[in-house]
Amino acid sequence: MEMTDSIISILDFTGTFAFAVSGALAAAEKKFDLFGAVFLGFVTAIGGGTMRDMMLGNTPVAWLHDIRIFYTIVIAVVFTFLFRPTIIRFTKALFLFDTIGISVFTIIGLQKGLGVDIHAPIAVMMGITTAVMGGIIRDVLCNDIPLIFHKEIYATACLLGGIIYLGLLYLNVSESIIIVTAATSIFIVRTLSVRYKWSLPKFK
Amino acid sequence: MEMTDSIISILDFTGTFAFAVSGALAAAEKKFDLFGAVFLGFVTAIGGGTMRDMMLGNTPVAWLHDIRIFYTIVIAVVFTFLFRPTIIRFTKALFLFDTIGISVFTIIGLQKGLGVDIHAPIAVMMGITTAVMGGIIRDVLCNDIPLIFHKEIYATACLLGGIIYLGLLYLNVSESIIIVTAATSIFIVRTLSVRYKWSLPKFK
Amino acid sequence: MEMTDSIISILDFTGTFAFAVSGALAAAEKKFDLFGAVFLGFVTAIGGGTMRDMMLGNTPVAWLHDIRIFYTIVIAVVFTFLFRPTIIRFTKALFLFDTIGISVFTIIGLQKGLGVDIHAPIAVMMGITTAVMGGIIRDVLCNDIPLIFHKEIYATACLLGGIIYLGLLYLNVSESIIIVTAATSIFIVRTLSVRYKWSLPKFK
Repeated sequence: MEMTDSIISILDFTGTFAFAVSGALAAAEKKFDLFGAVFLGFVTAIGGGTMRDMMLGNTPVAWLHDIRIFYTIVIAVVFTFLFRPTIIRFTKALFLFDTIGISVFTIIGLQKGLGVDIHAPIAVMMGITTAVMGGIIRDVLCNDIPLIFHKEIYATACLLGGIIYLGLLYLNVSESIIIVTAATSIFIVRTLSVRYKWSLPKFK
Repeated sequence: MEMTDSIISILDFTGTFAFAVSGALAAAEKKFDLFGAVFLGFVTAIGGGTMRDMMLGNTPVAWLHDIRIFYTIVIAVVFTFLFRPTIIRFTKALFLFDTIGISVFTIIGLQKGLGVDIHAPIAVMMGITTAVMGGIIRDVLCNDIPLIFHKEIYATACLLGGIIYLGLLYLNVSESIIIVTAATSIFIVRTLSVRYKWSLPKFK
Repeated sequence: MEMTDSIISILDFTGTFAFAVSGALAAAEKKFDLFGAVFLGFVTAIGGGTMRDMMLGNTPVAWLHDIRIFYTIVIAVVFTFLFRPTIIRFTKALFLFDTIGISVFTIIGLQKGLGVDIHAPIAVMMGITTAVMGGIIRDVLCNDIPLIFHKEIYATACLLGGIIYLGLLYLNVSESIIIVTAATSIFIVRTLSVRYKWSLPKFK
């Protein structure tokens, strides 16, 4: 288990970094100043986890007690501020890290949900909340309609990952395998969905 | 009392259903996809109660521990997705359910507020928060100015209902009568206000 | 210490009043009705502290248990509703009170952060959150991009004040002197920054 924990932790920071970069890039596009970029980097990276922890209410808000999250975000924003043109050229790397973030955030949120006395579907919702809420707040603060409501479908990937997680848990599969399988599924579905422009049904 | 509790519970689910439908309809108008509709249905239906519970901090967030709320919302959104044209034709029924929701949400929030050690006006604000916050978040996520800030006046109906509740409580009237009277007042004032286009004073 | 506490308390109410006025003025500009003005006055005045208290989670949300905050805000909004043209003419007084609010809110938030087991930079963030979040929520509800992301730089003033606070604390200076020095620094930097149109670097 310890091995899995370390890997999750590394992927968590990778995701936090990528989310903070995405917030800072959005700030750049809107011509925000440095404070705006830091603020947007923060809410994008920690918004989902913060909402989850405030709703669950059983554990403290995670980033308040882990100074490494703070530094990861500050470095990500400064990095974006300095090397934006270069970062934008490496779209694929950015997308890779972002998708890692979505996958691991979903699993972490789902696990925190399962740690409390709530029904499985609500725990899955906690996973999705962790993964999507930061981006939604980012878009609202930029005065845009959240991208995930009409274009991106990664919430569906998170949902599938959550269901796979619960299914394997029900089958008594060992935790490391569950985590790897569920996270990989989210990663693959999100990547394919963007590659092949999958979309959810819309209202007629 | 048990009778009253059951009736409140039924009205609560009616309101939750109506609020979720209103969220899904807003999503439809903005051409969101199915995830956007589910998300908007959820925040509209549970946004007010969630804000209230997170602020009061003494009880867990209600919908996390009652799976029936989850199913009510999911059914409401799917229902809206499938039968939107029909639903839109039944504006009056929708308005009826929505007003039921506003009335009962106010009472529930007010009661939760009174259960904590806070002053009466703050408890009334908890009632209003429960009734209005979901719609406000819905409008913000749709990138619109909240309707309730410039057109609808149902917050005033909730305020009146809250004051009536506290007045009767002060007079030692039995709880069931208080609840029915206060909820009915909100229902009537809201209905009349829309019918006769009452509006609050605006800035000159 | 008691003297300092009383002064902080008075400045806190001054700031609350100024923030509520700023919310009500924003509501007026958007042609909101009286409820919209009250709502916007409230979230502007208590939004930052509420976010902070919900995230820290160790103390109840402050305004729920202090009815004087409620009355301060209601009076501020009614006052704005009645005397808006006059208030607008006294821009300098308004700016003065607003800057007092920013300064004292930062210190209060920072102190609450230090009261919990969190790292110093996070405590400073709690101070900044207290000072800026109300205005950010106000702007989002008005469907504007938050002013503080691209124009105003008072978050930087709060950051400097926070650093000064921590520096003096490290040097074992007495608390009253720390508070006065840090608050005054925020006040001066904010005033000068507006006067001389200082701005933060933006993305190229």
